[in-house]
Amino acid sequence: MDDFSALDYVYMARAMRLAAKGRYTTPPNPNVGCVFVKNQQIIGEGFHSKAGQGHAEVNAMADARAKGYSLEGSTCYVTLEPCCHYGRTPPCAQALSDAKVARVVMAMRDPNPKVAGGGKSMLEQAGITVQTGLLATQAEQLNPGFLLRMRLGRPRVRLKIAISLDGRTALANGQSQWITGALARSDVQRERAVSHAILSTAQTVLADNASLNVRVNELGSLAEQLAVPLRQPIRVIIDRRQQLSGNEPLFRLSGRVIRVIDRPATHTVGETLLVKQCDNWLEKVLYALAQLEINDLWVEAGATMSGALLSAGLVDELIVYQAAVTLGDQARAMLQLDDLTELSAAKRWVLTSQCQVGHDLKFVYQPKEAIL
Amino acid sequence: MDDFSALDYVYMARAMRLAAKGRYTTPPNPNVGCVFVKNQQIIGEGFHSKAGQGHAEVNAMADARAKGYSLEGSTCYVTLEPCCHYGRTPPCAQALSDAKVARVVMAMRDPNPKVAGGGKSMLEQAGITVQTGLLATQAEQLNPGFLLRMRLGRPRVRLKIAISLDGRTALANGQSQWITGALARSDVQRERAVSHAILSTAQTVLADNASLNVRVNELGSLAEQLAVPLRQPIRVIIDRRQQLSGNEPLFRLSGRVIRVIDRPATHTVGETLLVKQCDNWLEKVLYALAQLEINDLWVEAGATMSGALLSAGLVDELIVYQAAVTLGDQARAMLQLDDLTELSAAKRWVLTSQCQVGHDLKFVYQPKEAIL
Repeated sequence: MDDFSALDYVYMARAMRLAAKGRYTTPPNPNVGCVFVKNQQIIGEGFHSKAGQGHAEVNAMADARAKGYSLEGSTCYVTLEPCCHYGRTPPCAQALSDAKVARVVMAMRDPNPKVAGGGKSMLEQAGITVQTGLLATQAEQLNPGFLLRMRLGRPRVRLKIAISLDGRTALANGQSQWITGALARSDVQRERAVSHAILSTAQTVLADNASLNVRVNELGSLAEQLAVPLRQPIRVIIDRRQQLSGNEPLFRLSGRVIRVIDRPATHTVGETLLVKQCDNWLEKVLYALAQLEINDLWVEAGATMSGALLSAGLVDELIVYQAAVTLGDQARAMLQLDDLTELSAAKRWVLTSQCQVGHDLKFVYQPKEAIL
Repeated sequence: MDDFSALDYVYMARAMRLAAKGRYTTPPNPNVGCVFVKNQQIIGEGFHSKAGQGHAEVNAMADARAKGYSLEGSTCYVTLEPCCHYGRTPPCAQALSDAKVARVVMAMRDPNPKVAGGGKSMLEQAGITVQTGLLATQAEQLNPGFLLRMRLGRPRVRLKIAISLDGRTALANGQSQWITGALARSDVQRERAVSHAILSTAQTVLADNASLNVRVNELGSLAEQLAVPLRQPIRVIIDRRQQLSGNEPLFRLSGRVIRVIDRPATHTVGETLLVKQCDNWLEKVLYALAQLEINDLWVEAGATMSGALLSAGLVDELIVYQAAVTLGDQARAMLQLDDLTELSAAKRWVLTSQCQVGHDLKFVYQPKEAIL
């Protein structure tokens, strides 16, 4: 890592806070923030808010110019490597070089194969001093889904399950409304809003009449804080038996619905994504969703799908809302898994965060092997 | 409540800390601490450490006298009403009056029917000023089991269960060693040590070869901190089918073992407690255990007994050790309960404490109806 001054940290931290403002709206693009500094003064700042709109660097340059500043000789602090390719916007590395910026400090390299060091090279070739690695760990946290997709070729999978304290998701008759309280359900709405797509199954959609959208009236003050209007997550429904007719409530709401099927469609309802039947079918489905540029997949499904994702090692985060209620052994299990004969073979997790949400608890676990 | 000065609080708080020192050894007696003050100086202090040995007041008086102080005109701070009956020791109220103590401040009245205000009356008749209610809530916490037994006529029941994050206690084949880690198991040893008796079932004893004693080498530094040598909890085993032969490991260890049976004993193994078969049998068993002066019952049993106690409304605290592991729906359930058709009928709990114990979580719940 290069050497950085105390002020470098201050400006990069500011760029990070700006980046986070875009988190409900940027997918499939990453969250990026940018600050320009000249003579120890911030002359311009910006962040990326939505695909197709200006990148953070471009917005920050426009901000500086609107305030009457020239960018010549300035330092640019940016949370991700500037792009070097013509995508929805021209390359930022080129714009920085045209503006005669003297120095670029970036938190981390962009693993996107279209960039991957190309931005840095372009800047250096233009004679700009480039430094990398300032607050890199924190920069990773701004875009866990985007970065995982770039590195593994699949979306980041976050599996949510609401349970009783004895690990049950519903009564034997299916009743599950409501095990957890209103505040936990509102928290789920915020998690849905920050997710790029929601994955569920036809069985869940049919059994619960689930719409799987973000209910803005349950978001509290969040809705007003958004930089641009809320984007509804893409709803991805595993529908191998092609049970959905198109008359379900989720089709009546705005936003994309993608039905994932494993043989040619018998009827056309919403968009369909055909992934041919195979051994590691779920993994293939995730690869296909990555091709659709889905970064973060929030999963709300039953014990079968939840257990299948978990068994296939495809769960990056397990989010458990736990209510202080006991339902007993007749009630529905949380995870359908193969029988184990040895405890040493059981999947272990690491608790990465927990909090009280109303009367309920929220736990976030990550697979132990992913952390240790 | 009477009026108290800031110094009154200080001295009573000191008496409480003294009382707590006895908590591993006092059963069936309550934990009591006592401080004598004259001219704003502590002249003597003491606590009750073991049934048959001196009460807190007697020990504190002896301490004062050993230091050369007269108790005449002093104030006595005591965490529970002084006794007025001849039990294992002569009445403390008499001793206080004999010593010409001027004032007695007690945290709470003793609900023991043998006292129940009698100590206060005896003191007042001797011309001593008596004040009650200082730090009463905290004083309750010193003796939850003793107080519950005095009020409800049954021991306080604390049900412990160790589970996976999906609410499973063992694999389908019964393997459960170890779902939780070494620190959680050590914590269980401390909980056993502080309990007056441990309740389990013949099934659990046979299936797990369980000894249900306190393993001193797993207590850490606690063993050295004890005022008197550790007392092994009474082991109470529900053995309705009279399955225990006497050859099980738990009979080879020192300490009382009480087999609870529901028809005349077919063979004599350990002590037996006969509670005739009836509808509310478990409740009757608890009443019988209260007759044996058992204050706190720590329960470690399977899903059937745990569920039966819970369904009968006989669980005062539910202690859950939760490991970050997933075992799936084939693994054993935590609680065997009747099927529910309405979520509103499910038993709700209030989380009263939680902490991390090594890699595991420990939750303490109390029944919602007992708190709200």
